Amino acid sequence: MKTVSFLLVGLGNLGSRFCQILLDKDAHLRRRYGLDLRLVGAADSRGIAADPAGLDLARVVGLKRAGETVAHYPEVGRDAPAAELVASADADLLLEASPVNLDQRAEPGLTCIRTALRRGMHVVTPNKGPMVLAYQELHDLAAEHGVELRFDGTVAGGLPALYLGQRDLRGALIERVEAVPNLVTGLIMDLLVEGVSWEEAVESARREGALEADASWDLDGWDAAAKLVILANAVLEFPARLEDVARTGITGLSPSELRSARDRKARYRLLATAERCSDGAYVLSVAPVPLLPEHPLGRLGRKQMGVVYTTDIYGTIAATIDEPDPIPSAATMLRDLLDIYS
Amino acid sequence: MKTVSFLLVGLGNLGSRFCQILLDKDAHLRRRYGLDLRLVGAADSRGIAADPAGLDLARVVGLKRAGETVAHYPEVGRDAPAAELVASADADLLLEASPVNLDQRAEPGLTCIRTALRRGMHVVTPNKGPMVLAYQELHDLAAEHGVELRFDGTVAGGLPALYLGQRDLRGALIERVEAVPNLVTGLIMDLLVEGVSWEEAVESARREGALEADASWDLDGWDAAAKLVILANAVLEFPARLEDVARTGITGLSPSELRSARDRKARYRLLATAERCSDGAYVLSVAPVPLLPEHPLGRLGRKQMGVVYTTDIYGTIAATIDEPDPIPSAATMLRDLLDIYS
Repeated sequence: MKTVSFLLVGLGNLGSRFCQILLDKDAHLRRRYGLDLRLVGAADSRGIAADPAGLDLARVVGLKRAGETVAHYPEVGRDAPAAELVASADADLLLEASPVNLDQRAEPGLTCIRTALRRGMHVVTPNKGPMVLAYQELHDLAAEHGVELRFDGTVAGGLPALYLGQRDLRGALIERVEAVPNLVTGLIMDLLVEGVSWEEAVESARREGALEADASWDLDGWDAAAKLVILANAVLEFPARLEDVARTGITGLSPSELRSARDRKARYRLLATAERCSDGAYVLSVAPVPLLPEHPLGRLGRKQMGVVYTTDIYGTIAATIDEPDPIPSAATMLRDLLDIYS
Repeated sequence: MKTVSFLLVGLGNLGSRFCQILLDKDAHLRRRYGLDLRLVGAADSRGIAADPAGLDLARVVGLKRAGETVAHYPEVGRDAPAAELVASADADLLLEASPVNLDQRAEPGLTCIRTALRRGMHVVTPNKGPMVLAYQELHDLAAEHGVELRFDGTVAGGLPALYLGQRDLRGALIERVEAVPNLVTGLIMDLLVEGVSWEEAVESARREGALEADASWDLDGWDAAAKLVILANAVLEFPARLEDVARTGITGLSPSELRSARDRKARYRLLATAERCSDGAYVLSVAPVPLLPEHPLGRLGRKQMGVVYTTDIYGTIAATIDEPDPIPSAATMLRDLLDIYS
């Protein structure tokens, strides 16, 4: 049995669900992988708790369910920032699951990840912020310190879009990537087709919890662009930045355009595309596109995302996920962790 | 630069194409992966050629294109069986790409693979025969000798159906697998829907080179069943054998059934299914099934295959491949090889 001690920063949607997955899977992980995963430090936006002997996962989940903070964890909880936890606690691995926060330069996630890598911890993160702002720096930092940096959950929820591209397409030249990596824009466009007004559609998405606090992040295509940038760096080995993406959001779309597409059996989705040029560079774009049913992403439902790789030697490979709740997105942290340790 | 010496048994459809891929990719493999892949022995059904300094790939491809045998390779070619090559030549890895040959107990592939593993070579094979007849034995033999046994090409052409299940679903409970792993049955059913007679449809498939010499292998569902058995062993860790699959081929299908499905917008495909029971075992079946367009495999074309994994924590993940020629199937050997060495 191998004990893996880990820190968890971020106990929102993904972090708390990940704790629940670990609780449910504890016996399976011990039996199948010989792994004893021990949470030795946790942080939310209001405080931290650390115990080298291990925190009680059920208690952490319970605190968060009650709307509480880990700062109130008995005896070892206190009011301090996440960065302090990562700088001081000893662990094998950091799980960084705090929100994107691009307008705050991806903090506190970015600092936590940098600190963990420098201290020799592996890092697993579904947080797009640090990966889109500092891909190359973090990649190099991990290599320099001989640790793993995994971020499969950054691109398309629970779909292993990155692993598919990085590992299963080895040796290929990737001619084109098309991805539908954002759920809420698909939902809104589907509602518009049904005759729901723009305001109602956005409000409905917000009520479902599908929309980020800053709606522009989704609606103006920033989220899809960030995911495309991470994919371009990780899979295409093309050093793209956010400003390299030609980005069109869904706000300008007219309902009549959407309905006329429907009449042609096409379904609009916010499509992220990377197209290889003759010089080996990629042209990156995000735009709402009507997709015909024959397109591998042409029948995606409201809880479905997908990616298509067009290659020279592996044909055209498409992968989609039906993700009715955020559990698969949280489970990517388990996928990444098991990829490191099994 | 790391030199990897390999033997290649089987220079038919897949083996010859693999050689061509290596010729085309040589510079890329050196630059990107630091690998110098050296063919030190080759075998076809009529002879062998071996040279520790490396055979000339272009010359091997040229011989096969001319309908020749490697036994006629200048100086080092001779009339001897593949098993002798594998037993005597020194190499890091065996690529076993001979035909399935289940009626000959998967020989000579099975003997070649056993010998290579015992001699400490890694083995990469897209040959279903040995894997379906001796999965557990070969798996154990590889573990015992500390070498890798990879067979990604056995299940669905160039689609990484096995890697997706084995690696990206780690930690999950797989509730159901559905796969369309056989191309020619889809082609024939599509032709029947169009009004082509059974005899003409089979003949047309044969002319395309899509049908095995023993047509029953495809038409009676043996091929799909073999692939399902390999997937069950490799991904589900369920020790299934060929006789455990409830198998219905496409020969009994009436054209009127197929057309009535079409009228309901459904498309028939030979579906291989593994369904988890409450006791943790899986029920395996192969049967022609009408798939609605909403099904992730419901719109597969004649050159397309796919797999769907229904899981507890990763949602439902589907992957499909469009494979207009056999190059992706041959390229799985490169995928496997790079997975071992990079």
